[in-house]
Amino acid sequence: MTPTPASFVSVDRREASKVAALDIGSNSFHLVVARIVAGSVQILHRVKQKVRLAEGLDENFVLSEEAMERGLATLRIVADSLKGFEPDSVRIVATYTLRKAVNANTFIRKALDIMPYPIEVISGPEEARLIYSGVAHTNHDNGKRLVVDIGGGSTEFIIGEGLTPMLCRSLQMGCVSFTQRFFASGELKAKAFERAITAAEQEMEPIEERYRRLGWQRCIGTSGTIKTLCNLVFQQGQKEPNDEAEVTLKDLKQIMKQFIEAGHIDQLTDPAISEDRRAVIPAGLCVLIGLFKALKIESLHYSPAALREGVLYQMEDELHNTDIRGRTASSLATRYDVDTNQANMVLNTTKTLYDACQKNWKLRHSDYRAIVSWAALLHEVGLQINTRGVQRHSAYILQNVDMPGFTQPQQELLATLVRFHRKKIRVQEISGFTQYAKEDIYKLIALLRLAVLLNIKRQDGFLPEFDVIAEKHGITLIFPEGWLASKPIMTADLEREISYLQTVDITLTVQ
Amino acid sequence: MTPTPASFVSVDRREASKVAALDIGSNSFHLVVARIVAGSVQILHRVKQKVRLAEGLDENFVLSEEAMERGLATLRIVADSLKGFEPDSVRIVATYTLRKAVNANTFIRKALDIMPYPIEVISGPEEARLIYSGVAHTNHDNGKRLVVDIGGGSTEFIIGEGLTPMLCRSLQMGCVSFTQRFFASGELKAKAFERAITAAEQEMEPIEERYRRLGWQRCIGTSGTIKTLCNLVFQQGQKEPNDEAEVTLKDLKQIMKQFIEAGHIDQLTDPAISEDRRAVIPAGLCVLIGLFKALKIESLHYSPAALREGVLYQMEDELHNTDIRGRTASSLATRYDVDTNQANMVLNTTKTLYDACQKNWKLRHSDYRAIVSWAALLHEVGLQINTRGVQRHSAYILQNVDMPGFTQPQQELLATLVRFHRKKIRVQEISGFTQYAKEDIYKLIALLRLAVLLNIKRQDGFLPEFDVIAEKHGITLIFPEGWLASKPIMTADLEREISYLQTVDITLTVQ
Repeated sequence: MTPTPASFVSVDRREASKVAALDIGSNSFHLVVARIVAGSVQILHRVKQKVRLAEGLDENFVLSEEAMERGLATLRIVADSLKGFEPDSVRIVATYTLRKAVNANTFIRKALDIMPYPIEVISGPEEARLIYSGVAHTNHDNGKRLVVDIGGGSTEFIIGEGLTPMLCRSLQMGCVSFTQRFFASGELKAKAFERAITAAEQEMEPIEERYRRLGWQRCIGTSGTIKTLCNLVFQQGQKEPNDEAEVTLKDLKQIMKQFIEAGHIDQLTDPAISEDRRAVIPAGLCVLIGLFKALKIESLHYSPAALREGVLYQMEDELHNTDIRGRTASSLATRYDVDTNQANMVLNTTKTLYDACQKNWKLRHSDYRAIVSWAALLHEVGLQINTRGVQRHSAYILQNVDMPGFTQPQQELLATLVRFHRKKIRVQEISGFTQYAKEDIYKLIALLRLAVLLNIKRQDGFLPEFDVIAEKHGITLIFPEGWLASKPIMTADLEREISYLQTVDITLTVQ
Repeated sequence: MTPTPASFVSVDRREASKVAALDIGSNSFHLVVARIVAGSVQILHRVKQKVRLAEGLDENFVLSEEAMERGLATLRIVADSLKGFEPDSVRIVATYTLRKAVNANTFIRKALDIMPYPIEVISGPEEARLIYSGVAHTNHDNGKRLVVDIGGGSTEFIIGEGLTPMLCRSLQMGCVSFTQRFFASGELKAKAFERAITAAEQEMEPIEERYRRLGWQRCIGTSGTIKTLCNLVFQQGQKEPNDEAEVTLKDLKQIMKQFIEAGHIDQLTDPAISEDRRAVIPAGLCVLIGLFKALKIESLHYSPAALREGVLYQMEDELHNTDIRGRTASSLATRYDVDTNQANMVLNTTKTLYDACQKNWKLRHSDYRAIVSWAALLHEVGLQINTRGVQRHSAYILQNVDMPGFTQPQQELLATLVRFHRKKIRVQEISGFTQYAKEDIYKLIALLRLAVLLNIKRQDGFLPEFDVIAEKHGITLIFPEGWLASKPIMTADLEREISYLQTVDITLTVQ
């Protein structure tokens, strides 16, 4: 086997002994600090802060000022624990609420004033994958397992085996949103439980068949809602809450019966239910019962590992340069049947150009080199739809496909570069990035475009060695004497490119 | 092999001895009337009218009033020749100019007042495919052939073998647009020729490698521009303009030299150049020389067959129920790895529903049954991109992929039905159809949605036999007694569907 093109894409190595992961959840924020020693993650300490961010989301998905302020206040506390950490040793991921909030960028920008680590909003499937990774590194089972995680705004289900996730889905139902829909008054009526359970089953309906067909040997639940429900079951059944203890549909129905008898959320005074979980636990119970019914789950075990552990293990992976994003890009290239030879020619030219310009163009973000390289590798995935408008089709695919390991802004940047790898650069369509400066994006687009253009002949050996000089807002390509003169079409192409690049304020000169 | 699902999609058979095809080109309108006898097409007569529609297209792609009036006046003449033809025996296709004109629908609507046959705007690749079909049915060669057709606004290239096109492309360069770009003043300078030829080569650059790699044994040119250039060459070389006569790059360069010596378009007085072609022939020559150079064509033969013959042969195919659209749909289903079992379940339910509602819902257009059936077959092609938002992804693919045999409105209708096969129906996004009434589209969407929903469990045998009653704006589904009561999730789904369908004014009742 020849090496896959993705292996050419190197990612900055980081040396760090102490790392931290913060999970900005819809219900709580969780901070975990750990030491990475010889490939294993040793948790040093954990902090949990109740924030209930999702409550601040209105029907138009605007996050309220109050909720933002609660979140920022919590970040100020957390920032204190993170003092002295290297930027590369901290990773902050945000899930459902910031995924949905139309004004998420306001929050993210304000957070950057509090601490120098960017908040990465991750997609639902990416959240699912990280949860699985957290569980898989913690619990060692044989055979396939189904992992479910009920959050405030979304619920994730993953079937995987060993460290490999096989099916990752995230559905938009969670204990906070279901509480608003079915238990807003606080009353606990049988009818409301029934309706909420049916609603959860409905959500599962389009995907349940695939999950049941793939199947699993063991089902594992994670996070606070499932932990609380398991504890309620265990204490009543006098089961030890250990790895072997399991919860069945019958157990959950028993809990439901007790909730209905209690009649109101205020009456849920069992000490196993912490005060801040009381309001949302009936809705969480309904989601879990819905899952049991839709997927015909026989029994469920609880695992303390969750999203944040997954994030830590991902950092550990990247540290050892086994960045999952490389695997993602390479598997996409295979799946969409990319012309590998051409992709590699463009990739090599892209890296030549990037390395020549990086310093003078002040391209400082650690994501850039890798992302422009993946863009080179994947810019033709859209050929699978049509040659005409390939730049639009490739961007559409890269925007919408699941890309394990990529945060939403990274995926969006990749799609944007690919979107403008040829034809007009529509600058008005390039916006909404908080982590990447617009001028930097323009420059990356210019580099990718030039690499694509210089390899337009799709022939090995067509492009000679050439020199690159980068000025502040310009780039000069110097070809061997006489080469351009013998290539009138390439010359005309480069002339056209000069005017294209003027729209992003880059002066292209060719000699 | 099991029968492909597409074979279930039947198309209205037509019995007709006389058929007509009208090609609304950017330069001329061509009418051909023919008799179809035992699978062969006998041309009865041809009419050509110079209209130069493309000249009326301004830089914002608005077609001028004058150009429209010229076109409509010509249609009035043609309409006379078409009196007495059955609607199904006439096909009118429009190419580049109406493809591009932002106000094309105004023209199409006015044309419908003149004659009862709708104008079908076809895509570039579809135009290419039909041209190839016209040539392939007329010239019988062994081995692969390259067919090129230089039109007023676009140029098509097709490599095919026998009756099968293998590569179909249409590029936006033509003799009218190149005249405007390079010979607007009428002067014929060497520099202008050089620039126009380079521009043509640039256009070819992204695709030339694929064409050259696939290769061909014989190159055939069609349409007026190439015919005129061939005639110029033949008369000077004293070649007989027969099937074997060929034109080389050297011949064309000779013609170019003469044009430059003439110095001005007005001086092109050779009788082989008809007066109405004089202004655009230098630009057409540049496009052809560009093609010769980019594709390294050694020699070219002229064929009198073109788009309109292709349209006639397509009508003949449909008459014998070998509708190419069925093959297209079935090959897309294969290419995008559609779950055939599920697609067939949805297809069968769709047809059951359609046949039950067709009469009371006044679904009269002959396209509907076939298109809603193909929508059922193809509604999940987008799974290849992502399960989330599959309705958007499927629609995106069906909008952008080449669909041989489909006109643009047919393809657009198919994509629109698929776009709303689940989730919200955004009625404001359903517009711009001149051939299909909006209310009909709503009804087809409703039928497809119900078929998808009723098969959501993806299980053979889940859905029992049921009755359908169609009222003017409503549909009632009657299931066997007790069935719904035992299916609370399906019941809840259908309840949700009741409110979805209210947005398109359809009352769903379930019993």
